[in-house]
Amino acid sequence: MRMYDLIAKKRDGMELDAQEIAYIIRGYVKGDIPDYQMSAFLMAVYFRGMTEQETLIMTNEVAKSGDMVDLSAIKGIKVDKHSTGGVGDKTTLIVAPIVASCGVKVAKMSGRGLGHTGGTVDKLESIPGYRTNLSQEEFFRVVNETGLSVIGQSGNLTPADKKMYALRDVTATVDNIPLIAVSIMSKKLAAGSDCILLDVKTGSGAFMKTLDDSIALAQEMVKIGENAGRKTVALITDMDTPLGNYIGNSLEVIEAVDTLNGKGPEDLTTVCLHLAANMMVLAGIGTLDACLKKAQNAIEDKSALQRLIAMVEAQGGDASVIKDTEKFAKARYMYEVKALKDGYVTKMDTEKCGIASVLLGAGREKKDSPIDFSAGIVLHKKTGDAVKTGDVLATLYASDEKLFVAAEEEYRNAVTIEKTQVLRNPLIYARITKEGVEKNDI
Amino acid sequence: MRMYDLIAKKRDGMELDAQEIAYIIRGYVKGDIPDYQMSAFLMAVYFRGMTEQETLIMTNEVAKSGDMVDLSAIKGIKVDKHSTGGVGDKTTLIVAPIVASCGVKVAKMSGRGLGHTGGTVDKLESIPGYRTNLSQEEFFRVVNETGLSVIGQSGNLTPADKKMYALRDVTATVDNIPLIAVSIMSKKLAAGSDCILLDVKTGSGAFMKTLDDSIALAQEMVKIGENAGRKTVALITDMDTPLGNYIGNSLEVIEAVDTLNGKGPEDLTTVCLHLAANMMVLAGIGTLDACLKKAQNAIEDKSALQRLIAMVEAQGGDASVIKDTEKFAKARYMYEVKALKDGYVTKMDTEKCGIASVLLGAGREKKDSPIDFSAGIVLHKKTGDAVKTGDVLATLYASDEKLFVAAEEEYRNAVTIEKTQVLRNPLIYARITKEGVEKNDI
Repeated sequence: MRMYDLIAKKRDGMELDAQEIAYIIRGYVKGDIPDYQMSAFLMAVYFRGMTEQETLIMTNEVAKSGDMVDLSAIKGIKVDKHSTGGVGDKTTLIVAPIVASCGVKVAKMSGRGLGHTGGTVDKLESIPGYRTNLSQEEFFRVVNETGLSVIGQSGNLTPADKKMYALRDVTATVDNIPLIAVSIMSKKLAAGSDCILLDVKTGSGAFMKTLDDSIALAQEMVKIGENAGRKTVALITDMDTPLGNYIGNSLEVIEAVDTLNGKGPEDLTTVCLHLAANMMVLAGIGTLDACLKKAQNAIEDKSALQRLIAMVEAQGGDASVIKDTEKFAKARYMYEVKALKDGYVTKMDTEKCGIASVLLGAGREKKDSPIDFSAGIVLHKKTGDAVKTGDVLATLYASDEKLFVAAEEEYRNAVTIEKTQVLRNPLIYARITKEGVEKNDI
Repeated sequence: MRMYDLIAKKRDGMELDAQEIAYIIRGYVKGDIPDYQMSAFLMAVYFRGMTEQETLIMTNEVAKSGDMVDLSAIKGIKVDKHSTGGVGDKTTLIVAPIVASCGVKVAKMSGRGLGHTGGTVDKLESIPGYRTNLSQEEFFRVVNETGLSVIGQSGNLTPADKKMYALRDVTATVDNIPLIAVSIMSKKLAAGSDCILLDVKTGSGAFMKTLDDSIALAQEMVKIGENAGRKTVALITDMDTPLGNYIGNSLEVIEAVDTLNGKGPEDLTTVCLHLAANMMVLAGIGTLDACLKKAQNAIEDKSALQRLIAMVEAQGGDASVIKDTEKFAKARYMYEVKALKDGYVTKMDTEKCGIASVLLGAGREKKDSPIDFSAGIVLHKKTGDAVKTGDVLATLYASDEKLFVAAEEEYRNAVTIEKTQVLRNPLIYARITKEGVEKNDI
């Protein structure tokens, strides 16, 4: 077999078989296939796509390229959750404790932030002492004891995905639904949970900008998960406006704790209840309605908050900041962005909001940039809200006053204020299961 | 400017401007742009094509990436000729002496054979002592003294093309008309002649297998040449059957000499007369009809043959083999491939004929394989001919008897014998000038 012929075959729109896909993925990881052939192949995939069969086979090959985590040492049904990434998306910090308190095990490996989106691992590391690099034995023990554990990706997980993603990132071949599905689902399959809930974001702050693309990606991923014997459901949730009001690492932990205290913003609370309920449905706990009630109860009786505190303590974190979020280290400087005219917020370019928070120090411009945990943005006006000249649109936080100039400019560019009020988007557009697409309007 | 953005722009079907194309070509030659980004870009070009403007700009950039040969030290009008490559294509050895004897200067850099097609430089090197690596001063002197010189590519000519072609060759991006046009025409522009005649081959032994593709490529190249201020014409000639009857290096020199002696096969003679006449028309010598007569005269009065002898002597070659081709070193072994049934030759897969000759030692399987100058094939039956069982279809020549097994098998697979006679293809399908396409049927 020659890589040349497989590039030509894909270029000409023919379907690759299992042996051919295995040759490509294994050869690329081993270094037998050079980057320049792989990038030509990936660009051909960009134009020709992949069939359902090709996508399934490639996902399995990429998953098998490294360790396949065996979670059998953890009792009970393990449900994983994956978000395609957004701005202000702190749902894992809320949803995992809720479902854990309802008897579902969450053994989750999360990522770090890159670009305009944040990462759960960074957020958790804003809690003093919290360790995201547990050994496998510690990880299993924490889940068995507290019902949940969230750590960073460890071990040799999907090296094929790491290598392919790095190449796609510099050759303009990221933005392709089958390749995105392969990348996400290979990691989920390798991570070993029994069930997978996918939170596919849609809108200006999401990777998928249109609802149609988001649904197509979700369908592809649900097929892959079910084909591999994992119960898989996807929700399509809005990312045309930041989720909740806080953007930044410790700021998002604070908002997550507020939400677990029953004092979260309505949009974030609603999305989290639905994500949690769907994870419970996957675990076989009950109907969607029954699980929604269980999730609400877990907030009301603080049992979810207790789970978060238990996990933080089990992973070496200082839980006093969770019990009293005033104890979080504060940013040295704050700056209020005020409205320059009357009207209504009609649009928030959510990617730009994310970039503004990166400019304040809350995110990474490069892979190994340091992060300022206390930096970020608190939103006071969101899409649909009325504003008067002089109203505070948002408060910016940073450790260096000089950062406010560029961040304010970026933030102002993100927010459109017009005369006529618009309705906010739905929070949840659709639920995708192996049976099909249920359109929602929640 | 970032290569990433330019890949994405081409991927999305937008037109690149002059600055952007210059950035890509210069950056790639300097090594600032890595192979893996260039191959993704080239695959995007494969799918999206290039506009006429992009193709013109890229050709000029590639031409300028190395030396631009200045032929002003050679008196008179210099006409170059380029063949897209075929099997049995020894036309340069016939056409260049003809036009030189009619007062047109030919200062030509030729290539070596690779794959199933031969190269003029290899053929000339079968003449004992013939030097293809002249210095620029020697090259100019030979052209000024004899009217023609054919040498190998020397100096730092179009390094961007060399690097891009090597990459395309291993990433399945060779077969794209704008990129082929850029590759050929950048070399022709850098080589410095005033006028360019393109011989675009079409059919089973050619790079372009269909007439439509051949015409499209010819049109693109004529536009590039004219745009760069070079008078450019293209002929579309048949390569669905090998040209002439001899395939192999010294065998093709022998057939070229036979043709210059007025004893060449009819197909080869006709094509050469038209190529020569068109080169003379480009040089402003006269009308096409008048130039055809001049070309015929140059054969009849042996003045063209004298020019070939003069060039060979000026470049250190032993012209006695030209004066008496019996003096060429002969292959040690010969083998006759005989017909196994009665009928007519209805098809010759010309690429396979070329591969059979490579298997005998006449060509290169890899870039630096040695060549056996005396190896090759003499065809006795061609498309349209009647054959009886036992008739000799072809004689194979090699220095090692063992090579006949594979070569015979390849050759038999190339030749189809059926009950019903077919007509041979036209030799020349079309003539493409800046005014348009004249369909021919010669």
